[in-house]
Amino acid sequence: MTRTPEDLISFTQQALRELRSRTPLVQCITNSVVVNFTANVLLALGAAPAMVDIPGEAGPFTQITSGLLINLGTPNSEHRQAMLEAATAASGTTPWVLDPVAIGSLPIRTPLAKKLRDLGPTIIRGNASEIMALSGEGSGGRGVDSADQVDSALPAALSLTANAQVVAISGAVDVVMDRHEQVRIANGTVLLTQVTGGGCALGAVMAAFASLGADQLANTVAAVTVYTVAAELAAERSAGPGSFAVAFLDALHHLDAETLGSRAHICVEQVSR
Amino acid sequence: MTRTPEDLISFTQQALRELRSRTPLVQCITNSVVVNFTANVLLALGAAPAMVDIPGEAGPFTQITSGLLINLGTPNSEHRQAMLEAATAASGTTPWVLDPVAIGSLPIRTPLAKKLRDLGPTIIRGNASEIMALSGEGSGGRGVDSADQVDSALPAALSLTANAQVVAISGAVDVVMDRHEQVRIANGTVLLTQVTGGGCALGAVMAAFASLGADQLANTVAAVTVYTVAAELAAERSAGPGSFAVAFLDALHHLDAETLGSRAHICVEQVSR
Amino acid sequence: MTRTPEDLISFTQQALRELRSRTPLVQCITNSVVVNFTANVLLALGAAPAMVDIPGEAGPFTQITSGLLINLGTPNSEHRQAMLEAATAASGTTPWVLDPVAIGSLPIRTPLAKKLRDLGPTIIRGNASEIMALSGEGSGGRGVDSADQVDSALPAALSLTANAQVVAISGAVDVVMDRHEQVRIANGTVLLTQVTGGGCALGAVMAAFASLGADQLANTVAAVTVYTVAAELAAERSAGPGSFAVAFLDALHHLDAETLGSRAHICVEQVSR
Repeated sequence: MTRTPEDLISFTQQALRELRSRTPLVQCITNSVVVNFTANVLLALGAAPAMVDIPGEAGPFTQITSGLLINLGTPNSEHRQAMLEAATAASGTTPWVLDPVAIGSLPIRTPLAKKLRDLGPTIIRGNASEIMALSGEGSGGRGVDSADQVDSALPAALSLTANAQVVAISGAVDVVMDRHEQVRIANGTVLLTQVTGGGCALGAVMAAFASLGADQLANTVAAVTVYTVAAELAAERSAGPGSFAVAFLDALHHLDAETLGSRAHICVEQVSR
Repeated sequence: MTRTPEDLISFTQQALRELRSRTPLVQCITNSVVVNFTANVLLALGAAPAMVDIPGEAGPFTQITSGLLINLGTPNSEHRQAMLEAATAASGTTPWVLDPVAIGSLPIRTPLAKKLRDLGPTIIRGNASEIMALSGEGSGGRGVDSADQVDSALPAALSLTANAQVVAISGAVDVVMDRHEQVRIANGTVLLTQVTGGGCALGAVMAAFASLGADQLANTVAAVTVYTVAAELAAERSAGPGSFAVAFLDALHHLDAETLGSRAHICVEQVSR
Repeated sequence: MTRTPEDLISFTQQALRELRSRTPLVQCITNSVVVNFTANVLLALGAAPAMVDIPGEAGPFTQITSGLLINLGTPNSEHRQAMLEAATAASGTTPWVLDPVAIGSLPIRTPLAKKLRDLGPTIIRGNASEIMALSGEGSGGRGVDSADQVDSALPAALSLTANAQVVAISGAVDVVMDRHEQVRIANGTVLLTQVTGGGCALGAVMAAFASLGADQLANTVAAVTVYTVAAELAAERSAGPGSFAVAFLDALHHLDAETLGSRAHICVEQVSR
């Protein structure tokens, strides 16, 4: 029995309420470009960010966090060590998200991403090019931009469900899938691509929602829906990418169940093999 | 003879005027999450930030700075070296602030913070959990969040006055103390805890005020008062954490003596042993 | 035949149009303080930022980028390696900008800047003190602040045209010069000095414009004019440094040819030897 969009919207409303009451501690080992924005997004959402990202501390800290994000945007050598340490510590205990930023031809991060993939992340998120590169197809995009469309990455995403419980492909319409179901979320705004970290911070939000319970497909849908609906609200109140980023944090902080209910555009399909 | 609140308010007004006319050069070795916000806070205040944070440069640079902040938020190995270098160079010549972010159980930063503590910072600032952990009590908080209340950290703060001239505990009401006096500042807004760097940037502001003269208790009270009064003003003009951070920089830039005088809530007590 | 200011204004209008249609990929190896703002400035402008800044990736990536920025603000050891790698890869193929932040007496970055200078950047940009220090004169400023006036750095800038095609000196009036012509751009606002990265992000914008074609003097003038005119517009809509930074991104995103034409203050002189 497939869930209905209504099931997922009502799950999302409940999940946001729970997240705010629990204030999950979310550890992020992320890139220098977006680390500030990511922390502010988590705070605006109602989670507690902790950027514990050095070797010797990253692993031990994972044992007390509720969720973990590993983002490969600017992976210097200490970050690489910390990522492996934290992912190993997380295995089987802490839900974690892998965001393989800009992999494909870049020679350090691409093998690292595959190593992390094999450690079994809870959720993998990326644009179409990154998802294809992580599954072994394609050659990646142009830096952080995807050279490919979401639909062309569906087979790659499906194959990655052998490694992760959930795979999310970001695009104009986001896709979230596990081995059985495939959910499309048609919310958001192009402004999310005009602010650095628009995608990266979503990975941290997924880690926050992943801490809420065992239904990781629904958790990930909730994360994407909350994030992209808040972005839509912010787009309506902003005059460009600068004011959008500011309005987005405000909107995330104030987002309520009613707005979520009236705005969310979710569509559920069976995974076809 | 204890100072009155009125003495401290008038000191604060004069200190802000002097800071703006001197534009003190403030060196920060701080974490990657808040480094941008910290620099913007110093600029908005009227100081000149300089994030010289690599080994081989940090120490020499300390000799020409007016104040120094060492913040342990994301202490990678080069930062750790640079911190020891700068703290050693500062000893006895440049006033410096130690902010032992998230110490307690984390195994790299906790011993580092104690080593830095023993080098004699001018000011130590932290939340209650960090102050207790630095004095050897308690086991720290949950990441950057304090698990303890300000008052429960007063004995720890008093014991740290053996290492530092001034100890500041941040909380809903901030406490600033030296061996003789204890000052409470009841300004601020919960929004400061919903923006990353809300506490960390205050450490840099303390380093800026510490450059103004020998009365470090009053300098620290001035830093906290200016910072938290500006935050109150910003809170009144903002719609959430995103617009608050923006309004805070504007408010800090325009804060005047009259507003300080009418808003500051300061209370002075003798230290009880 | 010297170009007229009108030639350069019309070049700038056309260059902005082209930049937005091409979305050049701009690699930045820049400091931790401004990396987020720099990426947002490039996105607002219509370029695609890629902060690929680790050894082993920086060099290979340079071969697919349209422009490269190397900024010495916080040059840790991996950044230093990545800078040399990328600059070497760029030589003769990818236009690149060197921004020798705070050089002069700082013992690590000063020799590094000279080594990079000798690799032949397309454009060198800095304040008067940095330009003088890079040419071997003067002893640098106070951190990121210039201790010298733009005009006092003109001989140093001219001597650096032996290393770079174009040299730009930032100040109240910016100067852009090559071996033959010297252009002054009298736009901008003091608010650019009250936001961290106000100068550093301009280096990235120069790298974006440098990708457009062979006329590097005109490209650099276009970069400075677009940047400083957008800043003027933002200053008129802001209440302090916080709201200025936000309004600046919005203004950069919406800047049109007509506003550029009516606002640009450009003056062209022959270089006197």
